[in-house]
Amino acid sequence: MTDRYFEDFAVGETFETPAHTISVDESLAFARAYDPQPFHLDAEAAQASFFKRLVSSGWQTAAVTMRLVVDSGVLRTTGIVGTGIDDLRWLAPVVPGDTLRVSGEVIDRQPWPGNKRRGTLRVRLLTRNQDGLVVMSQVANLVLSYRESA
Amino acid sequence: MTDRYFEDFAVGETFETPAHTISVDESLAFARAYDPQPFHLDAEAAQASFFKRLVSSGWQTAAVTMRLVVDSGVLRTTGIVGTGIDDLRWLAPVVPGDTLRVSGEVIDRQPWPGNKRRGTLRVRLLTRNQDGLVVMSQVANLVLSYRESA
Repeated sequence: MTDRYFEDFAVGETFETPAHTISVDESLAFARAYDPQPFHLDAEAAQASFFKRLVSSGWQTAAVTMRLVVDSGVLRTTGIVGTGIDDLRWLAPVVPGDTLRVSGEVIDRQPWPGNKRRGTLRVRLLTRNQDGLVVMSQVANLVLSYRESA
Repeated sequence: MTDRYFEDFAVGETFETPAHTISVDESLAFARAYDPQPFHLDAEAAQASFFKRLVSSGWQTAAVTMRLVVDSGVLRTTGIVGTGIDDLRWLAPVVPGDTLRVSGEVIDRQPWPGNKRRGTLRVRLLTRNQDGLVVMSQVANLVLSYRESA
Protein backbone atom coordinates (compact mmCIF):
# COMPACT_ATOMS: atom_id res chain seq x y z
CA MET A 1 0.00 0.00 0.00
CA THR A 2 1.39 3.40 -0.97
CA ASP A 3 1.80 6.29 1.44
CA ARG A 4 -1.37 8.36 1.68
CA TYR A 5 -1.89 11.85 3.04
CA PHE A 6 -4.81 14.24 3.45
CA GLU A 7 -4.68 15.20 -0.25
CA ASP A 8 -5.14 11.57 -1.24
CA PHE A 9 -8.55 11.04 0.37
CA ALA A 10 -11.88 11.96 -1.21
CA VAL A 11 -15.42 12.04 0.12
CA GLY A 12 -17.11 8.78 -0.84
CA GLU A 13 -13.98 6.65 -0.61
CA THR A 14 -14.62 3.34 1.12
CA PHE A 15 -12.40 0.69 2.65
CA GLU A 16 -12.70 -2.69 4.35
CA THR A 17 -10.60 -4.07 7.19
CA PRO A 18 -9.39 -7.58 7.94
CA ALA A 19 -11.42 -9.63 10.47
CA HIS A 20 -10.77 -10.40 14.14
CA THR A 21 -12.38 -13.09 16.29
CA ILE A 22 -12.86 -12.11 19.95
CA SER A 23 -11.97 -15.24 21.90
CA VAL A 24 -13.61 -16.07 25.23
CA ASP A 25 -10.28 -15.46 27.02
CA GLU A 26 -9.80 -12.10 25.30
CA SER A 27 -13.35 -11.08 26.18
CA LEU A 28 -12.94 -12.00 29.84
CA ALA A 29 -9.52 -10.32 30.10
CA PHE A 30 -10.90 -7.05 28.72
CA ALA A 31 -13.91 -7.20 31.03
CA ARG A 32 -11.77 -7.86 34.09
CA ALA A 33 -9.57 -4.88 33.29
CA TYR A 34 -12.09 -2.35 31.97
CA ASP A 35 -15.72 -3.41 32.40
CA PRO A 36 -16.12 -5.86 35.31
CA GLN A 37 -19.87 -6.39 35.24
CA PRO A 38 -21.55 -9.80 35.72
CA PHE A 39 -22.92 -9.99 32.15
CA HIS A 40 -19.35 -9.66 30.82
CA LEU A 41 -17.69 -12.00 33.33
CA ASP A 42 -19.95 -14.86 34.38
CA ALA A 43 -22.09 -16.95 32.01
CA GLU A 44 -24.47 -17.99 34.78
CA ALA A 45 -24.99 -14.51 36.21
CA ALA A 46 -25.40 -13.19 32.66
CA GLN A 47 -28.55 -15.27 32.18
CA ALA A 48 -30.37 -13.11 34.75
CA SER A 49 -29.15 -9.89 33.13
CA PHE A 50 -30.41 -7.49 30.46
CA PHE A 51 -28.54 -9.53 27.85
CA LYS A 52 -29.58 -12.99 29.11
CA ARG A 53 -26.19 -14.38 28.09
CA LEU A 54 -22.49 -13.60 28.34
CA VAL A 55 -21.59 -10.68 26.06
CA SER A 56 -18.38 -8.75 25.36
CA SER A 57 -17.96 -5.18 26.55
CA GLY A 58 -19.10 -2.59 24.03
CA TRP A 59 -15.81 -0.79 24.68
CA GLN A 60 -13.96 -3.90 23.53
CA THR A 61 -15.94 -3.77 20.28
CA ALA A 62 -14.78 -0.16 19.94
CA ALA A 63 -11.17 -1.12 20.72
CA VAL A 64 -11.20 -4.05 18.26
CA THR A 65 -12.66 -1.70 15.64
CA MET A 66 -9.69 0.62 16.17
CA ARG A 67 -7.29 -2.32 15.83
CA LEU A 68 -8.90 -3.42 12.59
CA VAL A 69 -8.72 0.09 11.09
CA VAL A 70 -5.02 0.23 12.05
CA ASP A 71 -4.50 -3.22 10.49
CA SER A 72 -6.27 -2.15 7.28
CA GLY A 73 -3.32 0.16 6.58
CA VAL A 74 -5.60 2.83 5.15
CA LEU A 75 -4.10 5.49 7.42
CA ARG A 76 -0.73 3.91 7.96
CA THR A 77 1.29 6.92 6.80
CA THR A 78 -0.04 9.77 8.87
CA GLY A 79 -1.30 7.69 11.76
CA ILE A 80 -4.85 7.50 13.02
CA VAL A 81 -5.26 10.47 15.32
CA GLY A 82 -8.82 11.02 16.45
CA THR A 83 -10.19 14.24 17.87
CA GLY A 84 -13.47 12.58 18.73
CA ILE A 85 -16.33 10.26 17.87
CA ASP A 86 -19.91 11.17 17.00
CA ASP A 87 -23.02 9.02 17.24
CA LEU A 88 -21.39 5.84 18.53
CA ARG A 89 -24.18 3.24 18.77
CA TRP A 90 -24.07 -0.33 20.04
CA LEU A 91 -26.74 -1.87 17.84
CA ALA A 92 -26.46 -5.57 18.69
CA PRO A 93 -24.61 -7.56 21.36
CA VAL A 94 -21.19 -9.04 20.60
CA VAL A 95 -20.80 -12.56 21.97
CA PRO A 96 -17.38 -14.10 22.73
CA GLY A 97 -16.40 -16.06 19.64
CA ASP A 98 -17.88 -13.50 17.24
CA THR A 99 -15.75 -12.42 14.29
CA LEU A 100 -15.77 -8.68 13.59
CA ARG A 101 -14.76 -6.66 10.55
CA VAL A 102 -15.20 -2.98 9.73
CA SER A 103 -16.33 -0.98 6.70
CA GLY A 104 -15.29 2.66 6.46
CA GLU A 105 -16.52 5.54 4.30
CA VAL A 106 -15.10 9.06 4.13
CA ILE A 107 -18.15 11.32 4.54
CA ASP A 108 -16.47 14.71 4.94
CA ARG A 109 -13.06 16.26 4.32
CA GLN A 110 -12.03 19.74 5.47
CA PRO A 111 -8.86 21.78 5.91
CA TRP A 112 -8.09 22.48 9.55
CA PRO A 113 -8.78 26.17 10.18
CA GLY A 114 -5.57 28.00 10.96
CA ASN A 115 -3.32 25.05 10.19
CA LYS A 116 -1.99 24.61 6.68
CA ARG A 117 -0.25 21.35 7.48
CA ARG A 118 -3.26 19.31 8.60
CA GLY A 119 -6.78 18.48 7.54
CA THR A 120 -9.67 16.54 9.02
CA LEU A 121 -11.68 13.61 7.75
CA ARG A 122 -15.02 12.37 9.02
CA VAL A 123 -15.20 8.60 8.52
CA ARG A 124 -18.31 6.52 9.10
CA LEU A 125 -17.31 3.13 10.54
CA LEU A 126 -19.65 0.15 10.63
CA THR A 127 -18.53 -2.90 12.62
CA ARG A 128 -20.19 -6.13 11.51
CA ASN A 129 -20.21 -9.65 12.92
CA GLN A 130 -19.83 -12.92 11.01
CA ASP A 131 -23.50 -12.79 9.99
CA GLY A 132 -23.11 -9.35 8.42
CA LEU A 133 -25.12 -7.72 11.23
CA VAL A 134 -23.95 -4.22 12.15
CA VAL A 135 -23.07 -4.41 15.86
CA MET A 136 -21.63 -0.90 16.19
CA SER A 137 -21.70 2.32 14.17
CA GLN A 138 -19.82 5.57 14.69
CA VAL A 139 -18.42 8.60 12.91
CA ALA A 140 -14.72 9.16 13.63
CA ASN A 141 -13.18 12.64 13.34
CA LEU A 142 -9.56 12.23 12.27
CA VAL A 143 -6.60 14.56 11.81
CA LEU A 144 -4.26 13.93 8.85
CA SER A 145 -1.08 15.57 7.63
CA TYR A 146 -0.75 17.04 4.17
CA ARG A 147 1.84 15.31 2.02
CA GLU A 148 3.66 18.58 1.46
CA SER A 149 4.24 18.96 5.21
CA ALA A 150 5.60 15.44 5.71
CA MET B 1 -24.40 2.15 48.75
CA THR B 2 -28.08 1.27 48.45
CA ASP B 3 -29.67 -0.31 45.40
CA ARG B 4 -30.70 2.31 42.85
CA TYR B 5 -33.04 2.03 39.90
CA PHE B 6 -34.35 4.33 37.16
CA GLU B 7 -36.82 5.98 39.58
CA ASP B 8 -33.96 6.94 41.88
CA PHE B 9 -32.07 9.18 39.44
CA ALA B 10 -32.86 12.83 38.77
CA VAL B 11 -31.59 15.30 36.20
CA GLY B 12 -28.80 17.32 37.77
CA GLU B 13 -27.49 14.51 39.96
CA THR B 14 -23.70 14.32 39.96
CA PHE B 15 -21.19 11.71 41.03
CA GLU B 16 -17.44 11.24 41.23
CA THR B 17 -15.44 8.07 40.63
CA PRO B 18 -12.28 6.73 42.26
CA ALA B 19 -8.98 7.35 40.46
CA HIS B 20 -6.84 5.06 38.31
CA THR B 21 -3.22 5.49 37.25
CA ILE B 22 -2.40 4.13 33.79
CA SER B 23 1.00 2.50 34.19
CA VAL B 24 3.51 2.35 31.35
CA ASP B 25 3.05 -1.45 31.12
CA GLU B 26 -0.74 -1.13 31.02
CA SER B 27 -0.50 1.54 28.34
CA LEU B 28 1.81 -0.56 26.17
CA ALA B 29 -0.28 -3.73 26.63
CA PHE B 30 -3.45 -1.94 25.53
CA ALA B 31 -1.69 -0.40 22.54
CA ARG B 32 -0.22 -3.73 21.42
CA ALA B 33 -3.67 -5.36 21.55
CA TYR B 34 -5.91 -2.58 20.25
CA ASP B 35 -4.04 0.43 18.87
CA PRO B 36 -0.56 -0.57 17.65
CA GLN B 37 0.67 2.78 16.36
CA PRO B 38 4.22 4.10 16.89
CA PHE B 39 3.15 7.02 19.12
CA HIS B 40 1.53 4.53 21.52
CA LEU B 41 4.31 1.92 21.46
CA ASP B 42 7.74 3.46 21.05
CA ALA B 43 9.00 6.54 22.92
CA GLU B 44 11.61 7.32 20.29
CA ALA B 45 9.29 6.98 17.29
CA ALA B 46 6.69 9.02 19.19
CA GLN B 47 8.98 12.07 19.18
CA ALA B 48 8.57 12.36 15.41
CA SER B 49 4.78 12.00 15.62
CA PHE B 50 1.79 14.32 15.95
CA PHE B 51 2.07 14.00 19.74
CA LYS B 52 5.86 14.40 19.98
CA ARG B 53 5.94 11.95 22.92
CA LEU B 54 4.58 8.56 23.94
CA VAL B 55 0.84 8.80 24.68
CA SER B 56 -1.81 6.27 25.66
CA SER B 57 -4.54 5.23 23.22
CA GLY B 58 -7.66 7.38 23.41
CA TRP B 59 -9.66 4.15 23.47
CA GLN B 60 -7.80 3.16 26.63
CA THR B 61 -8.91 6.45 28.19
CA ALA B 62 -12.47 5.50 27.23
CA ALA B 63 -12.05 1.98 28.66
CA VAL B 64 -10.54 3.28 31.92
CA THR B 65 -13.42 5.75 32.15
CA MET B 66 -15.86 2.84 31.92
CA ARG B 67 -13.95 0.97 34.61
CA LEU B 68 -14.04 3.97 36.93
CA VAL B 69 -17.78 4.45 36.47
CA VAL B 70 -18.30 0.74 37.27
CA ASP B 71 -16.06 1.12 40.33
CA SER B 72 -18.00 4.17 41.51
CA GLY B 73 -20.95 1.86 42.20
CA VAL B 74 -23.44 4.49 41.02
CA LEU B 75 -25.11 2.02 38.67
CA ARG B 76 -24.22 -1.17 40.46
CA THR B 77 -27.79 -2.46 40.76
CA THR B 78 -29.10 -2.35 37.24
CA GLY B 79 -25.74 -2.57 35.50
CA ILE B 80 -24.30 -0.06 33.10
CA VAL B 81 -25.81 -0.88 29.73
CA GLY B 82 -25.06 1.70 27.08
CA THR B 83 -26.97 2.12 23.84
CA GLY B 84 -24.46 4.63 22.59
CA ILE B 85 -22.17 7.60 23.11
CA ASP B 86 -22.58 11.12 21.79
CA ASP B 87 -19.92 13.79 21.31
CA LEU B 88 -16.93 11.83 22.54
CA ARG B 89 -13.96 14.22 22.41
CA TRP B 90 -10.31 13.61 23.21
CA LEU B 91 -9.34 17.04 24.48
CA ALA B 92 -5.79 16.48 25.72
CA PRO B 93 -3.29 13.63 25.46
CA VAL B 94 -3.04 11.03 28.22
CA VAL B 95 0.55 10.13 29.03
CA PRO B 96 1.51 6.80 30.66
CA GLY B 97 1.68 7.47 34.39
CA ASP B 98 -1.29 9.87 34.35
CA THR B 99 -3.95 9.39 37.01
CA LEU B 100 -7.53 9.65 35.73
CA ARG B 101 -10.83 10.20 37.50
CA VAL B 102 -14.32 10.85 36.19
CA SER B 103 -17.14 13.26 37.03
CA GLY B 104 -20.67 12.36 35.95
CA GLU B 105 -23.85 14.41 35.66
CA VAL B 106 -27.31 13.16 34.70
CA ILE B 107 -28.46 15.59 31.98
CA ASP B 108 -31.64 13.83 30.77
CA ARG B 109 -33.98 11.09 31.96
CA GLN B 110 -36.76 9.56 29.87
CA PRO B 111 -39.04 6.53 29.91
CA TRP B 112 -38.24 4.08 27.14
CA PRO B 113 -41.04 4.27 24.56
CA GLY B 114 -43.01 1.07 24.48
CA ASN B 115 -41.24 -0.47 27.47
CA LYS B 116 -42.66 0.06 30.94
CA ARG B 117 -39.80 -1.74 32.65
CA ARG B 118 -36.91 0.39 31.46
CA GLY B 119 -35.87 3.99 31.16
CA THR B 120 -32.93 5.87 29.71
CA LEU B 121 -30.48 8.32 31.21
CA ARG B 122 -28.12 10.65 29.42
CA VAL B 123 -25.01 11.15 31.53
CA ARG B 124 -22.24 13.64 30.76
CA LEU B 125 -18.87 12.16 31.71
CA LEU B 126 -15.73 14.24 32.07
CA THR B 127 -12.44 12.39 32.50
CA ARG B 128 -9.73 14.46 34.18
CA ASN B 129 -6.04 13.90 34.78
CA GLN B 130 -4.08 14.55 37.98
CA ASP B 131 -3.85 18.27 37.12
CA GLY B 132 -7.62 18.59 36.81
CA LEU B 133 -7.40 18.96 33.02
CA VAL B 134 -10.33 17.40 31.13
CA VAL B 135 -8.74 14.85 28.78
CA MET B 136 -11.99 13.33 27.48
CA SER B 137 -15.66 14.28 27.44
CA GLN B 138 -18.69 12.30 26.29
CA VAL B 139 -22.42 11.87 26.79
CA ALA B 140 -23.38 8.26 27.56
CA ASN B 141 -26.87 6.97 26.78
CA LEU B 142 -27.76 4.32 29.36
CA VAL B 143 -30.63 1.88 29.87
CA LEU B 144 -31.84 1.27 33.43
CA SER B 145 -34.50 -0.99 34.95
CA TYR B 146 -37.36 0.38 37.03
CA ARG B 147 -37.33 -0.82 40.62
CA GLU B 148 -40.82 -2.24 40.25
CA SER B 149 -39.65 -4.55 37.48
CA ALA B 150 -36.64 -5.91 39.37
